[in-house]
Amino acid sequence: MASARALRIDFGLAIHGGVGTLTPAALTPELEAEYRAALERSLRAGFGALRSGGSALDATVEAVGVMEDSPLFNAGRGSNFDERGVITMDASIMDGSTGAAGAVAHVATVRSPVRLARLVMDQSPHVLLVGEGAEHFARVHGVKEEDAAYFYTDRRWDALQVAKAEAGARPNVLGDSDGDESVEASPSEAPDPTSRSGTVGAVALDGAGRLAAATSTGGMANKTWGRVGDSPIIGAGTFASHRCAVSCTGWGEHFITNAVAHDVHARMEHADEGLAAAVRGIVFERLHRKVPGSGGLVALDADGNVELSFNTRGMYRGWIGEDGSPNVAIYAE
Amino acid sequence: MASARALRIDFGLAIHGGVGTLTPAALTPELEAEYRAALERSLRAGFGALRSGGSALDATVEAVGVMEDSPLFNAGRGSNFDERGVITMDASIMDGSTGAAGAVAHVATVRSPVRLARLVMDQSPHVLLVGEGAEHFARVHGVKEEDAAYFYTDRRWDALQVAKAEAGARPNVLGDSDGDESVEASPSEAPDPTSRSGTVGAVALDGAGRLAAATSTGGMANKTWGRVGDSPIIGAGTFASHRCAVSCTGWGEHFITNAVAHDVHARMEHADEGLAAAVRGIVFERLHRKVPGSGGLVALDADGNVELSFNTRGMYRGWIGEDGSPNVAIYAE
Repeated sequence: MASARALRIDFGLAIHGGVGTLTPAALTPELEAEYRAALERSLRAGFGALRSGGSALDATVEAVGVMEDSPLFNAGRGSNFDERGVITMDASIMDGSTGAAGAVAHVATVRSPVRLARLVMDQSPHVLLVGEGAEHFARVHGVKEEDAAYFYTDRRWDALQVAKAEAGARPNVLGDSDGDESVEASPSEAPDPTSRSGTVGAVALDGAGRLAAATSTGGMANKTWGRVGDSPIIGAGTFASHRCAVSCTGWGEHFITNAVAHDVHARMEHADEGLAAAVRGIVFERLHRKVPGSGGLVALDADGNVELSFNTRGMYRGWIGEDGSPNVAIYAE
Repeated sequence: MASARALRIDFGLAIHGGVGTLTPAALTPELEAEYRAALERSLRAGFGALRSGGSALDATVEAVGVMEDSPLFNAGRGSNFDERGVITMDASIMDGSTGAAGAVAHVATVRSPVRLARLVMDQSPHVLLVGEGAEHFARVHGVKEEDAAYFYTDRRWDALQVAKAEAGARPNVLGDSDGDESVEASPSEAPDPTSRSGTVGAVALDGAGRLAAATSTGGMANKTWGRVGDSPIIGAGTFASHRCAVSCTGWGEHFITNAVAHDVHARMEHADEGLAAAVRGIVFERLHRKVPGSGGLVALDADGNVELSFNTRGMYRGWIGEDGSPNVAIYAE
């Protein structure tokens, strides 16, 4: 369980690449270096959007898009397989300055679900499109699609086999997180514990004071056909307003029933809490008390305060401020 | 715009059957009588569950199930058609006493989506299943399915043709509600303005003090293939806790981006507001200011206070307390 030290930026962004039982012993030095490099690329892409006059919304799309395109993270390329051995993905985005949002769930062909979520926000009167209807919408709008081979990685396929073997031994009750202490695998069994779970996300604040949040995921390994977690649910995995922007990662079902992303906003709006208190109240008190090791989130407020908080052993994460220098971390500090 | 007078019950339930530009001139006396009778049947079914020892959760399922089975309401039998002429339905349920929830979205074959949502809650580790995966889950658990003819009604088919004709003249930006004053049809054009929209829902309080909420819908007429509104979204269309139970109906996209159902809870929890103030704050102030005529909700708190509130011209609604006598209403009072 860890919270970053107090951070403040004038403009910039914060990202996450999923939570899990991440300890220095759980990652090889090579894999750790790859993750750090990918997180830095994501931060630089988001910052590049801001520096070239893009909005907070643009920054979240660029940052999340880099992690979707990387096979390291469970989103876009490199997503988890469901119980059928099929990849289905979910994403959402929200513009805090307008209150507009877009989301897609259970899409299998779209290279960048977060870009499709933005298209739903910009080009349809709706917030959420699911399944083949969402893919039809993508084709009508000329969105880049890929075949199943593009999304495939040996690592996630192996994770499915492990998850299936374990599901035979006990009911599969894990969501996006494998932070439940009782099922932590030893490093020798699972060199990267997040290979079975994970979500990516970004929150951004631009020079005009606008906030935005975006989240994307392939869901949990061996998930039930049709299962959708919190990532495409506005108010659960993603929320943005004039007060704050929040993107979550963790055991999706608990993030839905606790409306985690909206609760950060609600604590600030209705209880006049600051960002740090609001995040602490939901991540460390409410969620952790109910479900230890259930996940984490990144959040920004309109004053540029940054929170990267998780009740698991680690979270792939990073932030970048107006100096353009990326900061990344994986383990609890 | 109307709010019921202050009501309090020891145990019982409140229901809604959708909002719209409902005025006495908009319904024939025969149709109005049919609606009133169906609302009473729904209330008696829910009350019967409570009286026979059932939980608040049981009561919401029975009450919503009656409205799903009635061709009058836009849920289950009699649901709206999407742009393809296909019926797809959404539902959700939440148990305030445990915080557990279940939901299904974009299902086409299930007779009672609210019963399937409860099954997801009770028999799966997940909260939300969508599309064919949800239907597969239903078949595995022996849930009653129907063919397309069962769900078909001439009335909704005609509503689709009207919606398609209007969509040719202007962008289709309406959600579950047709409460936007600028597009109100005259009675001669649309004998029942809610034939194009609507959602059904129930909230209940049992003798043990438990709260529950459930919501079910066929979505808007002529909706985009794959569009999902607020009804299956925990925190948007449905929420229940130890404090309150809320079921919403209205322009779904705005209920999602404002996390309406969770916001009622959040105002009570974080701002220490009573139920009436919390409901007023979101329905009449926040929502109505942003989107006039956007919808309404029914809500109960742990003390048995009842709210049936809407910022449209009417809402099919009712409540029943410990005396077992149903009370129903349609128009603003």
